[in-house]
Amino acid sequence: MIFNYLGRTTSISFKRFYHFTNKRLRVTTSRRIQKIMAATDRLNQTSDIISHSMQHSDSTTSLAALEKPFKVTVVGSGNWGTTIAKVIAENTALNPQLFARRVDMWVFDEKINGKNLTEIINTQHENVKYLPGIELPENLYANPDLLDSVRDTDIIVFNIPHQFLPRIVQQLKGHVSKHVRAISCLKGFEVGPKGVQLLSSYVTEELGIQCGALSGANLAPEVALEHWSETTVAYHMPADYRGEGRDVDHKVLKALFHRPYFHVSVIEDVAGISIAGALKNVVALGCGFVEGLGWGNNAAAAIQRVGLGEIIKFGRMFFPESKVETYYQESAGVADLITTCSGGRNVKVAKAMAKTGKSAEECEKELLNGQSAQGLITCKEVHEWLESVNHLDDFPLFEAVYQIVYNNVPMDKLPDMIEELDLGLKETA
Amino acid sequence: MIFNYLGRTTSISFKRFYHFTNKRLRVTTSRRIQKIMAATDRLNQTSDIISHSMQHSDSTTSLAALEKPFKVTVVGSGNWGTTIAKVIAENTALNPQLFARRVDMWVFDEKINGKNLTEIINTQHENVKYLPGIELPENLYANPDLLDSVRDTDIIVFNIPHQFLPRIVQQLKGHVSKHVRAISCLKGFEVGPKGVQLLSSYVTEELGIQCGALSGANLAPEVALEHWSETTVAYHMPADYRGEGRDVDHKVLKALFHRPYFHVSVIEDVAGISIAGALKNVVALGCGFVEGLGWGNNAAAAIQRVGLGEIIKFGRMFFPESKVETYYQESAGVADLITTCSGGRNVKVAKAMAKTGKSAEECEKELLNGQSAQGLITCKEVHEWLESVNHLDDFPLFEAVYQIVYNNVPMDKLPDMIEELDLGLKETA
Repeated sequence: MIFNYLGRTTSISFKRFYHFTNKRLRVTTSRRIQKIMAATDRLNQTSDIISHSMQHSDSTTSLAALEKPFKVTVVGSGNWGTTIAKVIAENTALNPQLFARRVDMWVFDEKINGKNLTEIINTQHENVKYLPGIELPENLYANPDLLDSVRDTDIIVFNIPHQFLPRIVQQLKGHVSKHVRAISCLKGFEVGPKGVQLLSSYVTEELGIQCGALSGANLAPEVALEHWSETTVAYHMPADYRGEGRDVDHKVLKALFHRPYFHVSVIEDVAGISIAGALKNVVALGCGFVEGLGWGNNAAAAIQRVGLGEIIKFGRMFFPESKVETYYQESAGVADLITTCSGGRNVKVAKAMAKTGKSAEECEKELLNGQSAQGLITCKEVHEWLESVNHLDDFPLFEAVYQIVYNNVPMDKLPDMIEELDLGLKETA
Repeated sequence: MIFNYLGRTTSISFKRFYHFTNKRLRVTTSRRIQKIMAATDRLNQTSDIISHSMQHSDSTTSLAALEKPFKVTVVGSGNWGTTIAKVIAENTALNPQLFARRVDMWVFDEKINGKNLTEIINTQHENVKYLPGIELPENLYANPDLLDSVRDTDIIVFNIPHQFLPRIVQQLKGHVSKHVRAISCLKGFEVGPKGVQLLSSYVTEELGIQCGALSGANLAPEVALEHWSETTVAYHMPADYRGEGRDVDHKVLKALFHRPYFHVSVIEDVAGISIAGALKNVVALGCGFVEGLGWGNNAAAAIQRVGLGEIIKFGRMFFPESKVETYYQESAGVADLITTCSGGRNVKVAKAMAKTGKSAEECEKELLNGQSAQGLITCKEVHEWLESVNHLDDFPLFEAVYQIVYNNVPMDKLPDMIEELDLGLKETA
């Protein structure tokens, strides 16, 4: 409760609040507005109480039981890694009872004009390479030494490119206590011969630590600029949970990630948000095709509708513990799908394919400057997996996207292919 | 079954189909592709069989029991009315066993350069006033006489502006047999002192005929141009259903509306698609505000997520017979929400309010050329209804939009207001 209030109240500076209520008073005296103001008043009072209690280490809050504030480490320092580290460091500074002030961010060090990137971050408080123009909190410490960055840490937040995870995890092996908890900001899953494995499960298996996930409609530059957005944190409480005040729980995670400009919902469904986070990129390719063909908003919305349906089906089929509500009610579900389909790398590459007739590979090379459109990899992995378990017919959109990307099937057949595969299913059923 | 196939197969001209399969054969021989082709082959064969059977009035089809083909009338001839009439007339021409070929479209007649609009439509096959540039089927008959247009008709499709419905319905009273069935393409509901009433229920109450609804992610100009889109038709089977071949059912409705470029899903949930169709406009205002403020894609997606949640809540609270799946799985639900939030009148007006600081009324006048942004009316009706039943706290986004539009509450407080009202709810719970 208190964490929520704390996150909330910091959003209203006194001056702005005064202006706000004053303006409201002038324009209306409706009961509704009075209620809103009363709620804001309560928030302000709560804020006073909390600041007070924090100054005096008041023992009436639920944080009093905390033996030692949680130390947090962010592994990764790209634009999303640095943005999340900024969010976290702001919160640790505001919650000294709950978190150690200093947040370590592991940085793969490199020279920028002869100077180490870590040194620049620690002196200028700006990641000039990956998040230029954004001031970082001074309690965020860029650490070039991976093992040093996680020494005595309680919470590790992974936020590196997908393909680096195995290497990093292997380096961490044997250096992380089993009581450490982790959150993965990497999207999705990996398909191997054993089947579909969530990245969070991979971390748990390799390091023996509980790992949740963070995902949402979060284009990093907008979050870095503190434009309002929402996100979802999923964390399944572990069997060896050590009790309130001594271990990470949903309240602690909300306090760690929630900001006035970054609204957090904490849920249990790690599988749901991971599945949605991976498969949305395949749907975005489909949207890019119909956009590139000039088919307009109706068609793009249709692709998103079909895509959401297939995401839910995939989740229910292979991760029956995931919840349908996660897909249509969480930021990591429908909202992230909408954001991803309204722009980004996958849409860009697919649009170019539609407009130029060039291959995915060529378009990726020309447009993404060495980066990859994750949907291209995911749709192939998903195709191979679905083929191996004989379920291709159940996912007509995913399959159509795969066929367009890898087998040159003409993309104007997309609507037909969706219906054909659908019919095929009904006929054999 | 047959109707589906018929609708489908007409989408593939032989030449295009040949090119398509040929190209596919060249690029791959995967099992998957072979299955797609097999399905296409089956469709083609089915098409042949159907054409054949239609020429010989073969009695092996399920249509043989039909006593008399259904006569269809479209009431309304704006851009959406004319587009839907085009869709229907294409289908009645293709399905002579099922439908009378001629489709009447009631037109509020007016002079265009000295000529009657109905005459122009019937000779030039173009609605030069409301859907210029689109060729209409010659079996679509523009009828200036409302009562004549519904004489001996079996199915009435209402597609007129919301505000004209009561007048039209009063004129029809006493002139429509109780066996007539209706589909309303008008979105939504009306809030009166008695509560929230669906427009379809209003038609049923006033005329004593069963009435369903059609709604989806359908910007009329894109459908008119035959760009691919999807829609949802909802029809609750009436107690006095007269049996297959003699009465309208889901298969008949699919045959009436489904086109290769206009994919139809037929469901029972009239309330669900009507609620979604009305409330999406309120959500679109919220999206327009954050867009106008320059908050970016994350914020717009967040508004849509919260909006979808409140639409579902509203439906479940006041129309418990509506199904959650309708909202997140049908074109009339999430897809229409996405399309509406990506453009259209409500977004336009709200964006202008954010950018210029002008009132909703001023922006509407300046931008919409005498038309109205439906969300402005709906958010007021919804506010008044929720206030009267003491449920304002449950719908923070709808309420925030209302306060911004009607009480000058600053729109940059939107995220706070959503959280405040949310908190208010939790505190009293």
